Amino acid sequence: MSRDSSKTVEEKLPDKKTNTSEWYSRVLQEAGIVDIRYGVKGFIVYMPYGMSIMKRIIQLYEEELEKTGHRPILFPVVIPEANLRKEAEHIKGFEAEVFWITHAGLTKLEERLALRPTSETAIYPLYSLWISSYKDLPLKAYQTVAVYRYETKATRPLIRGREFLWIETHDVFRTAEEALRQTVEDKDIFHRVTYEVLGIPFLHVMRMDFDKFPGAEHTYAFDTLLPDGRVLQIGTTHYLGQKFSRVFEIKFHDIDGSYSYGEQTCFGIGLSRILASLILVHGDNYGLVLPPRVAPIQIVIIPIPKTGFSRERLENYIEEVRSLLEGAGYRVYADLSEKTPGEKFYHYDLLGIPIRIEIGPREVEQNKVSVFRRDKREREIVDLGRLREYIAYLMEDIPETLKRRAREEMEKNIATVGSIDELMELRGSYSLFKTDFCDSEECAEELKTTTGGYEVRGRFLDEKPGEGARCIVCGGEARSRVLVAKAY
Amino acid sequence: MSRDSSKTVEEKLPDKKTNTSEWYSRVLQEAGIVDIRYGVKGFIVYMPYGMSIMKRIIQLYEEELEKTGHRPILFPVVIPEANLRKEAEHIKGFEAEVFWITHAGLTKLEERLALRPTSETAIYPLYSLWISSYKDLPLKAYQTVAVYRYETKATRPLIRGREFLWIETHDVFRTAEEALRQTVEDKDIFHRVTYEVLGIPFLHVMRMDFDKFPGAEHTYAFDTLLPDGRVLQIGTTHYLGQKFSRVFEIKFHDIDGSYSYGEQTCFGIGLSRILASLILVHGDNYGLVLPPRVAPIQIVIIPIPKTGFSRERLENYIEEVRSLLEGAGYRVYADLSEKTPGEKFYHYDLLGIPIRIEIGPREVEQNKVSVFRRDKREREIVDLGRLREYIAYLMEDIPETLKRRAREEMEKNIATVGSIDELMELRGSYSLFKTDFCDSEECAEELKTTTGGYEVRGRFLDEKPGEGARCIVCGGEARSRVLVAKAY
Repeated sequence: MSRDSSKTVEEKLPDKKTNTSEWYSRVLQEAGIVDIRYGVKGFIVYMPYGMSIMKRIIQLYEEELEKTGHRPILFPVVIPEANLRKEAEHIKGFEAEVFWITHAGLTKLEERLALRPTSETAIYPLYSLWISSYKDLPLKAYQTVAVYRYETKATRPLIRGREFLWIETHDVFRTAEEALRQTVEDKDIFHRVTYEVLGIPFLHVMRMDFDKFPGAEHTYAFDTLLPDGRVLQIGTTHYLGQKFSRVFEIKFHDIDGSYSYGEQTCFGIGLSRILASLILVHGDNYGLVLPPRVAPIQIVIIPIPKTGFSRERLENYIEEVRSLLEGAGYRVYADLSEKTPGEKFYHYDLLGIPIRIEIGPREVEQNKVSVFRRDKREREIVDLGRLREYIAYLMEDIPETLKRRAREEMEKNIATVGSIDELMELRGSYSLFKTDFCDSEECAEELKTTTGGYEVRGRFLDEKPGEGARCIVCGGEARSRVLVAKAY
Repeated sequence: MSRDSSKTVEEKLPDKKTNTSEWYSRVLQEAGIVDIRYGVKGFIVYMPYGMSIMKRIIQLYEEELEKTGHRPILFPVVIPEANLRKEAEHIKGFEAEVFWITHAGLTKLEERLALRPTSETAIYPLYSLWISSYKDLPLKAYQTVAVYRYETKATRPLIRGREFLWIETHDVFRTAEEALRQTVEDKDIFHRVTYEVLGIPFLHVMRMDFDKFPGAEHTYAFDTLLPDGRVLQIGTTHYLGQKFSRVFEIKFHDIDGSYSYGEQTCFGIGLSRILASLILVHGDNYGLVLPPRVAPIQIVIIPIPKTGFSRERLENYIEEVRSLLEGAGYRVYADLSEKTPGEKFYHYDLLGIPIRIEIGPREVEQNKVSVFRRDKREREIVDLGRLREYIAYLMEDIPETLKRRAREEMEKNIATVGSIDELMELRGSYSLFKTDFCDSEECAEELKTTTGGYEVRGRFLDEKPGEGARCIVCGGEARSRVLVAKAY
């Protein structure tokens, strides 16, 4: 709960740039985002403030999915072991990570049940019952759920957990062309929320064949850059082709009377990681900086009382301002508690409230308010008559500022390199490298070993290696222009 | 998917009154509410139409909870075995019903993890960290999650499953008085959505001591009446007192400087059962009848084309009507597909769409529309100029009609009885009995056996036995006026 923050009002947060990890832990706990003290490794608790933000993030993506014809579904958390084993590559990819339910009450179950690590093998047997004709297509559906993976790497709150939240879509089409078009629509959906509303920039790449989703034909991924210079995968879209539809018998009577197998895509929106990115990308040494659309409180009003000035008059004026802004549709909170203005400033800065309005005797007497915007930490005195208009402007300008700042930060970290030596020279100044690559898994592994952890994250879709370009590792013919970075 | 219904367009539903169980199964499948073919007993799939309704139901309750100061949280689905065992009565009540995770990947877990059957023992250890002063109280929070119980009784979709959806609140107060007041607020919240919006009437009773929630001081329950004459518990509020706060060390520094244990309540809103009740209480022989607030489509517009009349002119007029109503904020869908009007009527009746607008040449020529309300199955011809006003009226009148009808149905099923013989005589005509009772578990068991299944469901809070009243079973002194009914 945000209340906890009162205990640490005097302890400043560590510097975000130089001490990102401690800054992150402190903000998660003190702003009331998540609590990591649940006692089961990799499982965290969403606290009220964090969950209020998360629910708004979920709503944004769900609205975009509904607009593009996706409908909600909800499948069980348990998957029978036999289902999970049906697609060979898929089970191979997930086998080591599955939590198994073996008993219920005092009974041993006849068949083990997996906690869903992802839902293809839960959903597709039913799709095979729901789809029988081309008239049933396209089928576009999504569910917002937690998934479970027994991660053996070090866990980090919201970034790598054994339980995490995501939205998964599962779409079926008549033709490969439509399915491939869906992977582009998925990217657009992701862009409209992740970048346009939340201000989190990302790079869009196609994962290398050796790194794709178990069972997919292709995997497209969205990687964002975190302040420590590492990239984080925050979403993926998979073109499954007919790999699952053949296994799970998703077939339909086609227009020409023949039977065909459905062409499938699925799309994972990594909600927990998106919340982590939101915090890490926009935050500063005062705490969170929230885009207005996901801020539980968008405007906080703080009285600056003065001895000798009527408290009643001050509070009446505050109520006038509050009700004006609430009437305009904003989420407004006037904090009339007994804490000092300084304590309140500290607290709402930490919570990342986009706009703070300060009202003291001078504001009351002059019919003005003092407006502080959290993103730029700038203050402006505004006439009450002009307040609605000014707030409307800030509600547009704050997300624009966050977006621009974050995109510039990401872009200035990109360098194009022609050799491993060049990469090693530039790694102090850049985090993201574009280079040419031969597509082999061996070269990717060698690159990672030689450079102390730089990974081939995938090929850019809109860039190709130049004529005669050579692989940065083996010097063989380059087949792709790839993204190379350290990753979570 | 609703598409399935096209296959059965000619097969009428069975009669709801005389064949409730088959009517229910058919509606669930054909309207696309849930699919029971997942293959794991007690686990069902929410299909797109069912999940669209469910999401609206969830939103209604969450809004009321937020208005009354509850904030969202989300705790893990897994509970360490040691937590679950801490409160003795609690584990005794749930032990036989818990699903256990014992393995992850190829590893055997050191401690078994339970899938949450309810979340007291997950949440309260963290509450003990979040609460340290009376200033941290009240703490009011809710989570919307699935819970897991290995039911050994026969399962029924949405009514009794091994995975079901609910909202659970977990509140902590400084005093018992405040906690008890919360149980009244819970009832008001429940009433405002369940009855006022969804039109599902319920009886509010305090469960007998031998029937309360394991670990609670008191359990208050909400029972609704289903068409087969049995009651279904759709919500409960528990006054936990300090039973859990002492075990989980939820204590705080009180105003006077002393330490006290928190006074707790929790409140379960049975979402799956509420959806079942919505279907069973309001539905008729044509299918679902949805209250407008939870209907994914509120108004469907159906063209009635006629040879010789311009299709373009018809569709332009439909678009005018559609856009008028969408502009007024309603969820409107114009079905311009090639199906016949009769097929469309059947389909949207089945889906329970509250209002159907039919438009043919006469409507176009006279600038009118034909409006059909699903609840009363009545049609009215309305001038286009008066349409917005008339629809606004229906949006109020339909839920009022559903509420009134359902309440009258419930009330006419209540009889007050003075003896078991009288109960047995009246059971053909009534389903709910009020009677006087001595409060003993033995008498409740005897009543159930003698009557072939009638249960003491709890005592009414606003009614007392008269002077000298005797228990209906043993003839001893009556202590409560109770509800007796057959139950799910």
